[in-house]
Amino acid sequence: MQRIAVALVAIAALAGADTSTSPASGQADGEAAPIYGVKIPAGYRDWKLIAVNQLLIPGMADQLRAQLGNDIALKAIEEGKIPFPDGAIIVAIHWTRVPSASNNSALAGPFPGAQSFVVGSRANIQLMVKDSKKYAASGGWGFGDFTDGKPASAAMHETCFPCHAPAKDRDYVFAHYAP
Amino acid sequence: MQRIAVALVAIAALAGADTSTSPASGQADGEAAPIYGVKIPAGYRDWKLIAVNQLLIPGMADQLRAQLGNDIALKAIEEGKIPFPDGAIIVAIHWTRVPSASNNSALAGPFPGAQSFVVGSRANIQLMVKDSKKYAASGGWGFGDFTDGKPASAAMHETCFPCHAPAKDRDYVFAHYAP
Repeated sequence: MQRIAVALVAIAALAGADTSTSPASGQADGEAAPIYGVKIPAGYRDWKLIAVNQLLIPGMADQLRAQLGNDIALKAIEEGKIPFPDGAIIVAIHWTRVPSASNNSALAGPFPGAQSFVVGSRANIQLMVKDSKKYAASGGWGFGDFTDGKPASAAMHETCFPCHAPAKDRDYVFAHYAP
Repeated sequence: MQRIAVALVAIAALAGADTSTSPASGQADGEAAPIYGVKIPAGYRDWKLIAVNQLLIPGMADQLRAQLGNDIALKAIEEGKIPFPDGAIIVAIHWTRVPSASNNSALAGPFPGAQSFVVGSRANIQLMVKDSKKYAASGGWGFGDFTDGKPASAAMHETCFPCHAPAKDRDYVFAHYAP
């Protein structure tokens, strides 16, 4: 029952709408996530691309996603350094996935039956902030989940580390760098 | 018939495999694309993210895609400046879309039926380089399509501008900036 409740909280966060934009520059701003105290880092939307992916949870979430990293994270990836050094931050942006009628129309001539899907609105963002001392109890990572700039509940944040546990051999990071 | 042949060339390029990586720094390198003379710009993999999307052409292409832009392109997007100024470059990276068994396994507990798709290998990259004088005959854009670092044929490159024509009111750029 506990597990189901936690899953429902996570699903609610996945399905939520986030229309916020990140601060353009300066320090991390806004409300801190529960448990970890993580804030949304300034300027993260301009960070380098780690990977893109897609998640479908039938009837609950249909998303295109991108993981961006700060320079410390990208340097570690380039050098193949695991675990990530302190200061590394990875931000996963989750958008709704929607069909593009205009793209499909443009593609229909040369590619009959082509289906183009683009991002719709923000669902949420999820952050991982490396601080091996501060977050020693959760693999050295502090987690944050924000929808429309507001952090999710403590119950939601309790799911972050266990959910990432299967990626322990890659320092709890699911995303592989896209070639 | 001409149209079919052109489409087939485009499909072949879409379905091709590209395992190359971009040069880490320095000037554009490698072979120039036919017609436009466009080369792969150095360091483009570290450029800022414009958008992500997905393209499915049944039986031909199943891709996750990302569009990255150089600073000139991103500045124009941020300021809502259309047409793009000279020097703007947009690179679309096309990867095969593949299911992630490890992600699905990790997600199966909290999210039964979840399907995660990640990038596989490079299919190709496509570039748009703005030079309003040099490329006046093609909306001010020079186009390049590269698979495994090698440019596609002239016939393929003849399809670039007509294919982008439906996006004329957005200076021939299909991608919308992802929020």
